[in-house]
Amino acid sequence: MSAARAKSGKPASPQTASAWGDPGYEQGVVELLSLLACGEFMAFERLVTEAQLAPRLAQRVRVSQLAVGELAHYNLLRARIAELGYDPEECMEPFVGPLARYHASTAPSDWLEGLVKAYVGDSIALDFYREIAANLDPDTRELILEVCGELGQTEVVLEEVRAAINADPRVAGRLALWGRRLMGEALSQSQAVAAEHDGLMTLVFGAASGITDGAGLMDRLVGAHVARMKALGLSA
Amino acid sequence: MSAARAKSGKPASPQTASAWGDPGYEQGVVELLSLLACGEFMAFERLVTEAQLAPRLAQRVRVSQLAVGELAHYNLLRARIAELGYDPEECMEPFVGPLARYHASTAPSDWLEGLVKAYVGDSIALDFYREIAANLDPDTRELILEVCGELGQTEVVLEEVRAAINADPRVAGRLALWGRRLMGEALSQSQAVAAEHDGLMTLVFGAASGITDGAGLMDRLVGAHVARMKALGLSA
Repeated sequence: MSAARAKSGKPASPQTASAWGDPGYEQGVVELLSLLACGEFMAFERLVTEAQLAPRLAQRVRVSQLAVGELAHYNLLRARIAELGYDPEECMEPFVGPLARYHASTAPSDWLEGLVKAYVGDSIALDFYREIAANLDPDTRELILEVCGELGQTEVVLEEVRAAINADPRVAGRLALWGRRLMGEALSQSQAVAAEHDGLMTLVFGAASGITDGAGLMDRLVGAHVARMKALGLSA
Repeated sequence: MSAARAKSGKPASPQTASAWGDPGYEQGVVELLSLLACGEFMAFERLVTEAQLAPRLAQRVRVSQLAVGELAHYNLLRARIAELGYDPEECMEPFVGPLARYHASTAPSDWLEGLVKAYVGDSIALDFYREIAANLDPDTRELILEVCGELGQTEVVLEEVRAAINADPRVAGRLALWGRRLMGEALSQSQAVAAEHDGLMTLVFGAASGITDGAGLMDRLVGAHVARMKALGLSA
């Protein structure tokens, strides 16, 4: 990370001067923004690629229009990382491998699996970022909440998945298994990232984030996942 | 095409009332806009998908940002088809197969082939549309010239391909063969489209377009292709 540092990062606003005075805090925030930016860009790529499994052109177009929102989020995050004085691409590069492994291990075999992944998989990640953001400095928090906002995929996915289950109830069993696999792979790759990024882990499970209870965080993430699966008509 | 017709198409401007009074002209224009729209959307999908062959994240991002311009073009074309009273997706559906076959038969095996395809392949198509547009009604012409504008891919491709040839001159021979294949596959799929769309062919090679000499059109398309290959440092 130090190699990526080009010039001194500045406090983003006066209120946050104390948090920014801690180099560990700054490093953690830059790593968090870089992970999130890389995740947004690769989510864009995967959405466009995996939507090509859709039976109709109109469905592919609909998903691609949503995906462009992820690219806009990437641009916001990239601009902030640069503003803090770091080389965005260099900061993101270490996260490409783990994210690529997550996507490779969850390549959908059809359009429905792709939809469930776009909703269930991405939501697990977004819940995680929103939890961390809650106690960070206001500028970082606002940026993270903005880029973790709903892009409209929930509506598309609920509509399509419910229609498919109505047409053939056996689909529900297969997609329920798929949802569990998405959760498992997301956790596995998160652990790989955590093991290699101390600054990020200190930020996530430390005084700055206010999250001192990792098990509590996990309970909340799993709870939200179960609720989403239920909304889709799937057992978690 | 008639099944896709929802309500009466209106002349887009007073000057074009006479051309629009001819139902053959209207059908030809709607087919042309549908082919172009479908082509723009699938070019967006392929650019995002094929950029994933790039060695660095920054290159993937750069190509994806360009690709979003193609999606914006798709949206403009889709809106015009709807404005003329047709169902855009229904009008585009017949072109999905031939365009998918073109992309399947020209799947790049690496990042450089992907770049040459994005530039050389797309340019052949854009030259064709610009030729046809020259003599159509002003509203249709303006729209086509707008969506066939340069998105900045030329600069990216020239930069990357020249650098690769400098680093290893043997690359030039392989990419020259690849450029010829792109031209061949583009012609082959164009013929397949032409054979099934009489309205489009009447528009392209008729009084409305002013193109009565198919061989002359072909000469100009091939000439432009050869010039582009040369600019890349490749023999055509």
